[in-house]
Amino acid sequence: MSTLLPTQVRLNAYPTGPVGPETWQITHDAPAAPGPNQVLLQMHMLSVDPGMRGWITPKRSYMPPVKPGEVMRAFGVGTVLESKAKAFVPGDVVTGFTGVQTTGVVDAMFLRKVDLSLAPASSYLSGLGMTGYTAYFGLLDVGKPQAGQTVVVSAAAGAVGSMVCQIAKIQGCRVVGIAGGADKCAFLREALGLDAVLDYKAGDLGAALKAAAPGGVDLYFDNVGGAVLDTVLMQIKRHARVVLCGGISQYADMEQARGPANYLQLIAQSATMQGFTMMEYMHRIPEALAQILAWQQAGKLQFREHVLHGIECFPQAFDMIFSGANQGKLLIDLQP
Amino acid sequence: MSTLLPTQVRLNAYPTGPVGPETWQITHDAPAAPGPNQVLLQMHMLSVDPGMRGWITPKRSYMPPVKPGEVMRAFGVGTVLESKAKAFVPGDVVTGFTGVQTTGVVDAMFLRKVDLSLAPASSYLSGLGMTGYTAYFGLLDVGKPQAGQTVVVSAAAGAVGSMVCQIAKIQGCRVVGIAGGADKCAFLREALGLDAVLDYKAGDLGAALKAAAPGGVDLYFDNVGGAVLDTVLMQIKRHARVVLCGGISQYADMEQARGPANYLQLIAQSATMQGFTMMEYMHRIPEALAQILAWQQAGKLQFREHVLHGIECFPQAFDMIFSGANQGKLLIDLQP
Repeated sequence: MSTLLPTQVRLNAYPTGPVGPETWQITHDAPAAPGPNQVLLQMHMLSVDPGMRGWITPKRSYMPPVKPGEVMRAFGVGTVLESKAKAFVPGDVVTGFTGVQTTGVVDAMFLRKVDLSLAPASSYLSGLGMTGYTAYFGLLDVGKPQAGQTVVVSAAAGAVGSMVCQIAKIQGCRVVGIAGGADKCAFLREALGLDAVLDYKAGDLGAALKAAAPGGVDLYFDNVGGAVLDTVLMQIKRHARVVLCGGISQYADMEQARGPANYLQLIAQSATMQGFTMMEYMHRIPEALAQILAWQQAGKLQFREHVLHGIECFPQAFDMIFSGANQGKLLIDLQP
Repeated sequence: MSTLLPTQVRLNAYPTGPVGPETWQITHDAPAAPGPNQVLLQMHMLSVDPGMRGWITPKRSYMPPVKPGEVMRAFGVGTVLESKAKAFVPGDVVTGFTGVQTTGVVDAMFLRKVDLSLAPASSYLSGLGMTGYTAYFGLLDVGKPQAGQTVVVSAAAGAVGSMVCQIAKIQGCRVVGIAGGADKCAFLREALGLDAVLDYKAGDLGAALKAAAPGGVDLYFDNVGGAVLDTVLMQIKRHARVVLCGGISQYADMEQARGPANYLQLIAQSATMQGFTMMEYMHRIPEALAQILAWQQAGKLQFREHVLHGIECFPQAFDMIFSGANQGKLLIDLQP
């Protein structure tokens, strides 16, 4: 029954340390009428992302944090029910910042239309959404891989990581994926056909990396930070590039974050560590969408999705992201 | 008397933790005769550099470490007494890797001639030596400053830092120097005319930086790492560049190095952190030498030198570098 009631997941209070149930508040408020440049949405699907941890941290970042009491920020896909925005009419299917809610009023400037005849709603939150674009621009534009180079990817079985691995293979790179656990490693080896797969939970990662990339690492796409980043830094090549996409090992307790102790290897190897967000690339989304869709339709690229059901599972879904329990892009299907 | 005896300072054992007197061994061996492609040198002047800490750490870096029992690696200036190398004849004055010794046999491939009619020997180890070239290429080639940008420099009163500050001023940048103690800060304000000078020992560096650079930091030239790097990272602008030149706060105990806890700001600000060594730029030394000399002769650039006397003071000089007791480029004059 509860999914038929309008439901919102709100930020209750900024977490101090690990995120627990006290971080969230579930409400059942009836949506207001849309104001100018707003639309009322019926939501279909929500995206659960590691970046959400930063949005509930009251610290300077690329976006202002969500405030306590506000609906939690999230990407989603929904249908326009009412529109006070020129760009949309009722019946349009849209994606963007929709918030963690089943229905609600959203600013139109954060939305764009999607075409469900090209791909299902879930794809617009995985390979054809921010996840795919992050992998595409982070690897190609920030990382600048060359065919034949050795590319190492952490959280390689994750939403962004699995896209990065596949795009790097398409570029002709030798791809080494790092993941935790036999299932994820089997997926990377068998479904994605990586050149080497390293289980960071299964022993000496440094020794395993040395065996998998004896000539060193040209490009490291980092989603995790912590001990894995430190291990890879010790094996970067001269002029290597480290792309900082995330640091999920540091998100559990952002007040106690620790930096990469081996960062001085960047000096020794004349190497570069570069961060990025999708803010820079919003104007190039059409290019990425067209290319990723073409690769997918040609069978060169698969979107790995892990779909949960019902808005009430959001707190659990959030935990799964940080415990690594998800297998691919974590989504919540809101259809009753 | 002792300076008349041939004297060498050798690495006794790799330090574990802080470097003490047990790290060094002083010997008085008579030099051998030069072999093929070697020269026998009479030394005049030695350079004492923070990078020496890395040379006595048995860890992967841009050069192999010095081995216990070997003469400690150092840059110096000396006169060729005997030559078995085509490029040099007795009487040539040369600079390069000479080692910490009063006289000795050196591989010619690490030496180049200098012209004492243009500048004194000390200059070829300060502004016209690796110190100056490191500042020149690190700032201009790695950092790529633009006129009007805010450039922050740590260890700003040090050998490299004071050169970076002056070259950044020549480029039309707004330069904020960070140094420890009133004397160094007075030098930066009065002798170098920086736009703002921050004493990291005198209170809240973050607040002082915010006041000095309210619009944020475009370019940070880091010589120190540690808390200062973390503080500046919190105030970098979008697309900022962090040039990693050194991390002297981390050199005291390299086994316990800590990385910049705020490194995820590189993601939030789409910023870049890049390391470099002079290895990349050896072929461009003539360009740097000509430009730095021209600036110096035009009165736009001064070389700050701190000269000690006698090879026996090498262990004490090494300590001075790490306690920040030197005022500019630390040199040891070996002339009796």
